[in-house]
Amino acid sequence: MGSALAAALADAGHPTTVWNRTPGRAPGLAVTRAATVRDAVTAHPIVVACLLRHDSVHETLAPVVDDLRGRTLVNLTTTTPNEARELATWATGHGIRYLDGAIMATPPMIGSREGQVFYSGSAAAFDACRPVFDVWATSEFHGEDAGMASLLDLAMLSAMYGMFAGLTHGAAMAGSAGVRATDFAVRAIPFVGAMTAHFARSAEIIDGGDYTVPGQSLDFSDLGHIVQASEEQGVDPATIVAVQGLIDQQVAAGHGAEVFERIYESLRAPDRAVAR
Amino acid sequence: MGSALAAALADAGHPTTVWNRTPGRAPGLAVTRAATVRDAVTAHPIVVACLLRHDSVHETLAPVVDDLRGRTLVNLTTTTPNEARELATWATGHGIRYLDGAIMATPPMIGSREGQVFYSGSAAAFDACRPVFDVWATSEFHGEDAGMASLLDLAMLSAMYGMFAGLTHGAAMAGSAGVRATDFAVRAIPFVGAMTAHFARSAEIIDGGDYTVPGQSLDFSDLGHIVQASEEQGVDPATIVAVQGLIDQQVAAGHGAEVFERIYESLRAPDRAVAR
Ligand SMILES: NC(=O)c1ccc[n+]([C@@H]2O[C@H](COP(=O)([O-])OP(=O)(O)OC[C@H]3O[C@@H](n4cnc5c(N)ncnc54)[C@H](OP(=O)(O)O)[C@@H]3O)[C@@H](O)[C@H]2O)c1
Ligand SMILES: NC(=O)c1ccc[n+]([C@@H]2O[C@H](COP(=O)([O-])OP(=O)(O)OC[C@H]3O[C@@H](n4cnc5c(N)ncnc54)[C@H](OP(=O)(O)O)[C@@H]3O)[C@@H](O)[C@H]2O)c1
Repeated sequence: MGSALAAALADAGHPTTVWNRTPGRAPGLAVTRAATVRDAVTAHPIVVACLLRHDSVHETLAPVVDDLRGRTLVNLTTTTPNEARELATWATGHGIRYLDGAIMATPPMIGSREGQVFYSGSAAAFDACRPVFDVWATSEFHGEDAGMASLLDLAMLSAMYGMFAGLTHGAAMAGSAGVRATDFAVRAIPFVGAMTAHFARSAEIIDGGDYTVPGQSLDFSDLGHIVQASEEQGVDPATIVAVQGLIDQQVAAGHGAEVFERIYESLRAPDRAVAR
Repeated sequence: MGSALAAALADAGHPTTVWNRTPGRAPGLAVTRAATVRDAVTAHPIVVACLLRHDSVHETLAPVVDDLRGRTLVNLTTTTPNEARELATWATGHGIRYLDGAIMATPPMIGSREGQVFYSGSAAAFDACRPVFDVWATSEFHGEDAGMASLLDLAMLSAMYGMFAGLTHGAAMAGSAGVRATDFAVRAIPFVGAMTAHFARSAEIIDGGDYTVPGQSLDFSDLGHIVQASEEQGVDPATIVAVQGLIDQQVAAGHGAEVFERIYESLRAPDRAVAR
């Protein structure tokens, strides 16, 4: 990802200096190579970090924290929201403008508007860096909470992994009766794709907080027969069991006649649900 | 659902006789009402059952099994695949042609081609009933295994519930930081909708059975940071933990460098996976 970001900047004519722990990676890049982290972070007013995890950002930048003072640090390393907040506090405490970014793209998508990057943290830093960000992807600022970019990214990824796990579960059920995954996919992709649109109404119900509106009830959505059928077909029902668990909590609390969207209240911690 | 099916038949000019356990439901229907189950099943050569669960089909039809001999029974009651197979064996053993149907539509969609019904069981019965089926929805025959219609239906529903649970989880994460579900949905729906198309390639990988192809590795897909972020934001991570469990099994078996699609092998029971 780091080399894709650097290549896009070089292509767009931005003077770019790179450092990587292991030298010699991405030999084709038409950029300046710094011998040390210090040389890299002092080369330009904007410093971009794209490392592996939260730890590696501290490990790499702590030794040069005084050189970063007065500069803007854009951290595109994937972290949790709280890790991003911790980095923002650390950076700000050392006089560094901090902006956290979450990349919703693969490296080949960098350099077009196809990909998206969410940013949060210093609004001034976002405005100043905007010409650089626009080189990489469609960029969006999500406020001064440095954890927000990561939170929205992980929220989107949660939805994506739920969808992929669901489709894979369906393929395994179909496969247990000799149906090829590709034959299942031909039917399931347009169906699930079309059904995503229904979540617009679900979101309205969740925001409204009234789950007694007309619609498919939790009792009707009991997934017991899917769990049973999965087991009988030799398919691990774990992902469906987890969804059923969210349903069961609400049914046990007396909400079986309310709509499926009520599983939102199982997902939210009780204290938060009450505080809404 | 039963009254929607009957209304569509009446509208299309098919002579239709209905029976319902509780009399007087759906008073507006322009059909013949039978006083007893026997009167209903002997009125026409095609008998359609749309009751609640597997049990209710036996309960309702066992007393009139001799009257059903020589007729076609189309069972549109939701059952598991094995329950459908059991009903097929029971019916066939009594000289009844059996066809199982799984309705992928809500009642208001019946009478257009918008909805879909999967059928499996007697091919001769499907061909004979086709003009009736075409009144209700787009109909598809899926072979002589009477369990197949239900299996495909439940496989599609598994995928749909995974997707909805994922989107609801994402909304809960975003909501924990004060983002409205509708604002999350505006971003997440097109993203997840577009990502469903990628499952076409996933299905090819699953059918090929070679998970060492280029792509996002299981190690890269570790969802630990989503689980951690969910917990820190007060969101129950259960559905993500379930997906992570499928990943963990494959990583533990030494497949961490292989692609995410390998979770398919966690879903399939080991004996089946070997037998493929
Ligand atoms: N690839 C994607 O599709 C994608 C999408 C969205 C977000 N991201 C995020 O982008 C970041 C980079 O991902 P990637 O795909 O480029 O991963 P990668 O190919 O594994 O690269 C990781 C980079 O981090 C460096 N690194 C790791 N630990 C380090 C440490 N302790 N100190 C200094 N450098 C360290 C590595 O240096 P060496 O060369 O010395 O090992 C390497 O340059 C990750 O946070 C990832 O989640 C990636
Ligand atoms: N509605 C949908 O969107 C939808 C979609 C796909 C599939 N389906 C399937 O269609 C079937 C019917 O669903 P529905 O939505 O119409 O449910 P419903 O409104 O609850 O109707 C259930 C019907 O079954 C009858 N019934 C229940 N237990 C019975 C028993 N032991 N003996 C005789 N009759 C009995 C009820 O009779 P009483 O009037 O006497 O209670 C009623 O007519 C279910 O298997 C459902 O899964 C429905």
